Amino acid sequence: MADRVVARVPPDALRAFCVEALRRCEVSRADAAIVADSLVDADRRAVYSHGVVRLRDYVHRLRTGAMKPDARLRQVAGRAPFTVVDGGNGLGQVASRAAMRRAIGYAAKQGIGAVGVRRSNHFGCAGYYSRMAAREGMVGLAFTNSSPVLAPWGGRDVVLGNNPWSIAVPRAGGDVVLDLANSVAARGKIRAAAAAGEKIPLGWALDREGTPTADPRAALEGIILPIGEYKGYGIAFMVDVLAGVLTGAAFADDVGSPRDAAGEANVGHLFVALDIRRVMRPVEFEKRMGALVARMKSARRWDGTAEIYVPGEIEIKKQAANEASVPLFEDAVTSLRTVAKDVGVALPAGVGSERPF
Amino acid sequence: MADRVVARVPPDALRAFCVEALRRCEVSRADAAIVADSLVDADRRAVYSHGVVRLRDYVHRLRTGAMKPDARLRQVAGRAPFTVVDGGNGLGQVASRAAMRRAIGYAAKQGIGAVGVRRSNHFGCAGYYSRMAAREGMVGLAFTNSSPVLAPWGGRDVVLGNNPWSIAVPRAGGDVVLDLANSVAARGKIRAAAAAGEKIPLGWALDREGTPTADPRAALEGIILPIGEYKGYGIAFMVDVLAGVLTGAAFADDVGSPRDAAGEANVGHLFVALDIRRVMRPVEFEKRMGALVARMKSARRWDGTAEIYVPGEIEIKKQAANEASVPLFEDAVTSLRTVAKDVGVALPAGVGSERPF
Repeated sequence: MADRVVARVPPDALRAFCVEALRRCEVSRADAAIVADSLVDADRRAVYSHGVVRLRDYVHRLRTGAMKPDARLRQVAGRAPFTVVDGGNGLGQVASRAAMRRAIGYAAKQGIGAVGVRRSNHFGCAGYYSRMAAREGMVGLAFTNSSPVLAPWGGRDVVLGNNPWSIAVPRAGGDVVLDLANSVAARGKIRAAAAAGEKIPLGWALDREGTPTADPRAALEGIILPIGEYKGYGIAFMVDVLAGVLTGAAFADDVGSPRDAAGEANVGHLFVALDIRRVMRPVEFEKRMGALVARMKSARRWDGTAEIYVPGEIEIKKQAANEASVPLFEDAVTSLRTVAKDVGVALPAGVGSERPF
Repeated sequence: MADRVVARVPPDALRAFCVEALRRCEVSRADAAIVADSLVDADRRAVYSHGVVRLRDYVHRLRTGAMKPDARLRQVAGRAPFTVVDGGNGLGQVASRAAMRRAIGYAAKQGIGAVGVRRSNHFGCAGYYSRMAAREGMVGLAFTNSSPVLAPWGGRDVVLGNNPWSIAVPRAGGDVVLDLANSVAARGKIRAAAAAGEKIPLGWALDREGTPTADPRAALEGIILPIGEYKGYGIAFMVDVLAGVLTGAAFADDVGSPRDAAGEANVGHLFVALDIRRVMRPVEFEKRMGALVARMKSARRWDGTAEIYVPGEIEIKKQAANEASVPLFEDAVTSLRTVAKDVGVALPAGVGSERPF
């Protein structure tokens, strides 16, 4: 079963393993720490699809030379507060963190800043970067394109990424963070249904001919559907314009996959920060956010719904619950095992003797 | 039948009628022309829900004093390139056009600009403003909150607006424009189904108890659903943060309805412009957009799909098709008749002797 927790590892130990593995691939300690933090943060927040399960692919691309361990960020266009940087085909997290820091710096001086990135790679969770701005008292926006999994509305060729994006704002109780891709269901959910021999709801996917299907295997050979039909297609399209076209990165089906062992992915990102202090006292913003959140949470609920959440709230609860140890699913453990073997690093204690928890 | 074209009027004549009607409500000629252009533009682009059908409500609010005909925009926070203005409870289109012009001006000087608006009103189509930036060679973003029609995901109290937003970028063949609200289907579509005695698809709405319903009357008494379930709720929530919380406007269910005859609506908007020239030559951006659009349009199509579109493309075709005359549905004609009678202005030629076309 791919959806069962088979190990629990303290975050520090998990980060240390990631750092050590990346170090063996010639990544500097500082850069390795950024990537490790991004992956473990995702697992802690229960966004497992962007957690340490990804490490295997990163390591593989570094080892084949498809991705550079020592890329340097280089500004290639614009001037403050709106610039574009070249990620040098390095780790997406390293370029993205630096780019969002730049955008935050611009916003601190001028109220608003934007930094595009070209020649980057898979950057993990979009919310990791928007939250950086929120922690500085700013609105943060993060957009990325990604390798193709969607078809345009009315089409049956996969030519468009799912193109995740995120908006975050500060809040004392924990930042409010929207972080989403534009499909109804992730391919991972459809793979899980196929593995379990279950049907999927109509509306999740079309088969190869463009006909709605409840068969997860037909769906995996076909195309997954965007949220709101043409609306989600439109959102994915515009995110590609912002992250890909505008930045000089690849776009549409030219964006490479993080799973490919060869070739530059040339992923593009765009990061924007708006400094709230410019237009409103932080205490006032906090008060108003509190009122908005309270209004949502006080709505009468559907039968069987225990609580109404605001964006990012479930992830904060998970983050707190997983403070002492991070749950790892079989896929993640397989990723770590492969990495451990490939680069010769010892697995963290607790991984290697998996029995389901 | 509410969905039948009952009159066709040349755009100039329709604009002139709107201007004259607003003039009778003490709106200046210049401001009246802005509102008229926004409404007739929406009808030409077949976004009938935001066309002259709205004039009756605007006139009604002006006549009762709920909305001010002579509001002056006043900067209340921030400094270039990120400011907030107070719309003075005037016409939403007037405040919004001025605010987007400001954002464009900031972006022309500094590469990027953002202007929030508080104490505004219904502003028509979000795309009307994002397209202003696109016409200047910029990326334009427009966000607005609106009176409540959505419930939070898991809830059954209507406490959140549908909160439309738009992104536009320039393109020689016609700007590419995403312009959407966050529900699966507009309430207007559900009203049309109720009038026609037809069922609606499951997934559009819940009844008062929070149970999915195919009955349009139960849906109208219940709640309409956001796209992508919790995802669309999250988007609507974050648009309220940007347009309402951040700007000092009303938010959640405190946002007034454009249909109310009394009371400040205190609608909030946020406009952002990014100057593409800062980071890329316009000819290069044009070439890249062309390649992205071509890739979508060249995908193999579903059976029965004649063409694949990119965001805003259908509206451009409609705009061209309606260049000589604007189609008016019964609702729009009723709006114009009411206005004509209330303020004593002659109806445009062609309206008044309706027979279906």
